Amino acid sequence: MEFSLIDRIRDLTAQHRDDVRLGIGDDAALLAVPSGQELAVAIDTLIEGVHFPVGTDAADIGWKALAVNLSDLAAMGATPAWALLALTLPNADVAFIDGFAAGFAQLAQLYRLALVGGDTTRGALTISVVVHGFVPPGKALTRAGAQAGDIVLVTGTLGDAAAGLHCVQRNHRRDDAQVRYLIERLNRPTPRVAAGLALRGRASACIDVSDGLLADLGHICASSHVGAEIDATLLPRSSALLDQFDETAARNFALSGGDDYELCFTVLAQQVAAVQADLARLGCGATRIGRIVEGEGITVRDRDGNQIESNRQGWDHFNT
Amino acid sequence: MEFSLIDRIRDLTAQHRDDVRLGIGDDAALLAVPSGQELAVAIDTLIEGVHFPVGTDAADIGWKALAVNLSDLAAMGATPAWALLALTLPNADVAFIDGFAAGFAQLAQLYRLALVGGDTTRGALTISVVVHGFVPPGKALTRAGAQAGDIVLVTGTLGDAAAGLHCVQRNHRRDDAQVRYLIERLNRPTPRVAAGLALRGRASACIDVSDGLLADLGHICASSHVGAEIDATLLPRSSALLDQFDETAARNFALSGGDDYELCFTVLAQQVAAVQADLARLGCGATRIGRIVEGEGITVRDRDGNQIESNRQGWDHFNT
Repeated sequence: MEFSLIDRIRDLTAQHRDDVRLGIGDDAALLAVPSGQELAVAIDTLIEGVHFPVGTDAADIGWKALAVNLSDLAAMGATPAWALLALTLPNADVAFIDGFAAGFAQLAQLYRLALVGGDTTRGALTISVVVHGFVPPGKALTRAGAQAGDIVLVTGTLGDAAAGLHCVQRNHRRDDAQVRYLIERLNRPTPRVAAGLALRGRASACIDVSDGLLADLGHICASSHVGAEIDATLLPRSSALLDQFDETAARNFALSGGDDYELCFTVLAQQVAAVQADLARLGCGATRIGRIVEGEGITVRDRDGNQIESNRQGWDHFNT
Repeated sequence: MEFSLIDRIRDLTAQHRDDVRLGIGDDAALLAVPSGQELAVAIDTLIEGVHFPVGTDAADIGWKALAVNLSDLAAMGATPAWALLALTLPNADVAFIDGFAAGFAQLAQLYRLALVGGDTTRGALTISVVVHGFVPPGKALTRAGAQAGDIVLVTGTLGDAAAGLHCVQRNHRRDDAQVRYLIERLNRPTPRVAAGLALRGRASACIDVSDGLLADLGHICASSHVGAEIDATLLPRSSALLDQFDETAARNFALSGGDDYELCFTVLAQQVAAVQADLARLGCGATRIGRIVEGEGITVRDRDGNQIESNRQGWDHFNT
């Protein structure tokens, strides 16, 4: 049964790539990395009830399992190529498999990403995906290069996914288009792959916002040995978020909510305008939200310049 | 906590490799594949109570989670290089983490394998490991090249791990050295990496015995579009297995028991002696157990040439 499940997923996610010398069906895949490229590899696991609400549509789970991994490649400035999937299921539910594979394939096709390996096992619903991408040597974006004076920007809008989770948990009415939009942002995050490629050679540091802005910008600060000042009035927020929630809730979602999968990055002040123009052309845009300073930690200020605190420090799967 | 758990595992499994340009601690690892080599990649998941008995020592779980993946690389004739780990735990149990990491590291060090990425999440105990290895283009061993007339061999001995599982489940006395040996074969399988490398360019097909000889040789037959005849009297079995179990049980363990992680492979008749000599020098040896025939399916014959049947068809995680 293991073989037929993975074969079914393979058939539903077929992508021909010349660099896949041997795909699913043997003891290992055989892959050819283009000469002059380094390999970027990331792994992320989704657990039902932790990383997505119980009852989430199978296709949304398939999309999200791949999206969160592609987001890691985006944050490195890597071009996606291959994925492997470890899928643990309570039972051999063909309808679930087909839905999962359809959502996974829908996103994979956007990047001509090939599924090259997999393993299915029986247990609590758990999905681990590994993605591989290419990046020229020395060109990868890391968390470690931010310097005092750099400007902090984020793509897209923040807080939508956490607000969407709130809507799911409180059973908000899904006939409301804004509620549907927020839940869609939770279930179908858009990995900012093109933005990551556009930032190669320009961003001094980059991370994707998976655990919340404060937590993830905090990783940039820790890796770069710097601090950051954020202006809460500049946080990019969707009209859906602002219409559906009051200012305090919207700000907390934007500062500390997880699962947005936008990129948070730093650039030299004189490059901000050019970077913003390029990311606007890519559709996601980029908003300036603060700056890197000497020291450590993140300070968030309101419109009066007063220091405010967030009421949550992002996701921590072993404490929340 | 996610970061500190993976950092702890990283610290306990530290291996310096020049081809790891960026290891654990960013959004993805950055890796350099040697020029002129293809990448072999495999993923396997272990679930408590399915792939190892509840109560298995943490260090044994760490060893086995890596071993079953290295076994896939061995079956391809690939040289191990890097691993990623997705570890799902019910709680942040530092003693478990340290034990797991110690067992994982003990095996990793034998191959100078570097842990380059990881993700820890909260849930039922589930371990997915991804391994990467190198193989020259066109030199990988696959399941697809066996031809009628080729001889079927296996490394080591068969059935020990299944017998060990039986001993654990029936609470056999662990002060018996043979019982301990069988359980050790279950908990600490030896991936036949050196044997796989020695078989490059010589084995026409190869697979590792994870689901049982009949199931796995069946995969070679299906991929190669051939059949096989096995002589049950030739199956290599340890003295521990033969002393602790009667002939019928020992034969069934050897034919259908999973988890041995020996290599089953096929070679031209005229190469058998040379291959056996080389694998004897490597310590595991190789025993001739039958031959490839035209047609399909596997026939097993006893000492009188009568066709016998096995009472189990190997592991199937969605049916057993």
